[in-house]
Amino acid sequence: MISPYSHSLLHDLWTELSPAEQVEKFKNLSVGEAKKFLVELSTFEQARLLSTLPDDDRWLWLRALAPDDAADVLQQLAAVEQTVFLEHLDQSTRHEVSALLAYRQDVAGGLMSPRYVQLRDDMSVPEALAYLHRQAVGHVETLYYVYILDGNRRLTGVTSLRELFVASPEQSVREIMSTDFITAGDDMDQEHLSLLFAEHNLLALPIVDHDGRMKGIVTIDDIVDVVEEEVTEDIQKMGGSEAFNAPYLEIGLLDMIRKRAGWLVLLFLSEMLTANAMSYFENEIARAVILAVFVPLIISSGGNSGSQATTLVIRAMALGQIRLRDWWRVLRRELIAGLCLGSIIGVIGLGRILGWQMLFHSYGPHYQLIAMTVGFSLVGIVAWGSISGAMLPFILKRVGFDPASASAPFVATLVDVTGLIIYFTIAANILRGTLL
Amino acid sequence: MISPYSHSLLHDLWTELSPAEQVEKFKNLSVGEAKKFLVELSTFEQARLLSTLPDDDRWLWLRALAPDDAADVLQQLAAVEQTVFLEHLDQSTRHEVSALLAYRQDVAGGLMSPRYVQLRDDMSVPEALAYLHRQAVGHVETLYYVYILDGNRRLTGVTSLRELFVASPEQSVREIMSTDFITAGDDMDQEHLSLLFAEHNLLALPIVDHDGRMKGIVTIDDIVDVVEEEVTEDIQKMGGSEAFNAPYLEIGLLDMIRKRAGWLVLLFLSEMLTANAMSYFENEIARAVILAVFVPLIISSGGNSGSQATTLVIRAMALGQIRLRDWWRVLRRELIAGLCLGSIIGVIGLGRILGWQMLFHSYGPHYQLIAMTVGFSLVGIVAWGSISGAMLPFILKRVGFDPASASAPFVATLVDVTGLIIYFTIAANILRGTLL
Repeated sequence: MISPYSHSLLHDLWTELSPAEQVEKFKNLSVGEAKKFLVELSTFEQARLLSTLPDDDRWLWLRALAPDDAADVLQQLAAVEQTVFLEHLDQSTRHEVSALLAYRQDVAGGLMSPRYVQLRDDMSVPEALAYLHRQAVGHVETLYYVYILDGNRRLTGVTSLRELFVASPEQSVREIMSTDFITAGDDMDQEHLSLLFAEHNLLALPIVDHDGRMKGIVTIDDIVDVVEEEVTEDIQKMGGSEAFNAPYLEIGLLDMIRKRAGWLVLLFLSEMLTANAMSYFENEIARAVILAVFVPLIISSGGNSGSQATTLVIRAMALGQIRLRDWWRVLRRELIAGLCLGSIIGVIGLGRILGWQMLFHSYGPHYQLIAMTVGFSLVGIVAWGSISGAMLPFILKRVGFDPASASAPFVATLVDVTGLIIYFTIAANILRGTLL
Repeated sequence: MISPYSHSLLHDLWTELSPAEQVEKFKNLSVGEAKKFLVELSTFEQARLLSTLPDDDRWLWLRALAPDDAADVLQQLAAVEQTVFLEHLDQSTRHEVSALLAYRQDVAGGLMSPRYVQLRDDMSVPEALAYLHRQAVGHVETLYYVYILDGNRRLTGVTSLRELFVASPEQSVREIMSTDFITAGDDMDQEHLSLLFAEHNLLALPIVDHDGRMKGIVTIDDIVDVVEEEVTEDIQKMGGSEAFNAPYLEIGLLDMIRKRAGWLVLLFLSEMLTANAMSYFENEIARAVILAVFVPLIISSGGNSGSQATTLVIRAMALGQIRLRDWWRVLRRELIAGLCLGSIIGVIGLGRILGWQMLFHSYGPHYQLIAMTVGFSLVGIVAWGSISGAMLPFILKRVGFDPASASAPFVATLVDVTGLIIYFTIAANILRGTLL
């Protein structure tokens, strides 16, 4: 038995090799191994390997890819290179790949395979099985899902090899096919598509154009990659940077800095408002420096509760558990949760000041008023953080942005600025006549 | 043609119904529709529906689930209920479900189906097809992947319905089966398992115990759910709360508050150190209140760059793109990126102070020194944020914690405390003899 781990091992080492070393390694594989290995690489790695291979090998291996995978690879290349690559495919594959290239990579049309098995509904079961038998040695994506089209290429039924296999020979395809099927439009977004797969436990989904004509199928193994990719984009945005287009260790350093600098600068510019807010209260701070001491503690608590709320809401939206019209239910929940969490934190903050006072007499004669100021501010700011963190994704989605852009740092910045105003306003009211 | 959207529509409305209304709705479906609908519900929803149904219906519908799904549902119930549910299964299913219940839900053994097709290697192709034909009308999970076991139930080969279908009748199973296959142990973590599926584009994976005996198969449709679930856990932790065990709108309010309060309190207690740090520099602040004005701006910049870095590293780790031994490469990248990002932010901060001075004369005679203090602090703190944000997941993973716990709020808290020390130390050195 050949060890299955040879591929894994090579795969593990692969990313640490230079492109030239990768080509060397790849050429030393047997044709069977090389094909298996190439198919398992990510699109990004496939494109890089093919670009590095000498011309003759390059066309050979390009032809080894299924048309949907070849189209994905070509989409990674510059337009000039695309044309050269396309010319080296045989005519029917070139036709298929060109049709797929017309779609954006992140819609159903860009994911589908045009090589599915199609039958007519007037075939008998033995005819259908014989036809499948001939197809099986060819290069269809899968034999297991079988689609029945009418004369206008409209989908009228679906069945499977399993159902044909157990059907009695006297039956026709029409009798055993199911007419209760789900289709997706070729322009459906891949995130939506993956939710459809998850919700209905689908293994394959036929893709149709605006006129209802069948264009191809998307299978669940493509969807696993989509889910990973969409989630990675979301997470990177939620961390406060633009989505990367390559793995962390592979992306160019300059490219990475560019993707991170944008948001960082934007957040810094917004956060500058805290300096204005602080300046506005400079007299209060000069009279009671003790107020400044608690600024980081208080504003960060709002940022933390806001970060929790925004993350929970963004993820629930991505999973389809929360829709725009649920905003009121979410607001109500967050208001209650925020007030409870704020009270817990407020009591701890109050206790901290009273305790410190007993131990070290740090806060002077008005320590009780200071403790009250901090306690009330914490309740208000934690509740405000929860509410604004939870509502920001709704607002972004409503105006057409990606809700995942409501990153933890974005919410923290928002709450920092407003939090200072809440804190100093409460302080002014409680401490007027004593410290201020 | 029956509209495929009836199920989707019901599904959409489902979560907004009370349990009693759900039972009513469910009972109005035809048996076929009800079964299809039940199978599409999440485990959480299946368990709730079955618990609410009257006794007779409950056992009927429990039996409609595949043994691995039934085991998942039972795992949601209290131990007493589990026993009652188990008693109402037929003997062979009870045996299968009990065996699955022995596994944790998040390992391969807890995900697998025990109902796979097995053949002997000395069968001829027609014998094998005839055997599959008999199995097909039964309740095997899938016909398409076929496993060849020896007398000790050890896996010796794999093949598929497609390969058997195209093989010539003179061949034996041994001749067409592949012996180059991948297996996974029954105790493999589901996150690891899903990476294996993605890396090798698998559709099904045989699961074996420590002695190499075949126990079941995991199919890719189960893996899609696993990926969603693991990612949701990671994201919730990255937002600074514990992972929820139910959708956002379904989880009890008290339960949600409990899951969020833990981290929030812990972060608050750590953030208290900022109050100590600020107190320590209270004299400096009293002499130069202007220093306090920039505190929120400066520490939040460190938090933001740290949040970017930790999020990128956690995700790359979850995807297997970064391993523990890569820490040095990551540190090097983050040091360079952090210094570059810090310089960009530092220059903007410097410009802000000089600009404000020209416009409003806000910062007194020593404005140039203040600008330098803020500029240098920003470079240092943004770089420090990137480094500590990137290294924290490595440290957590090394000592056995989930790297996803290195949440944006966690990193921000860490950087807030250390950032204050960096800022005031730089200020003390630059401003000594003038403002301080």
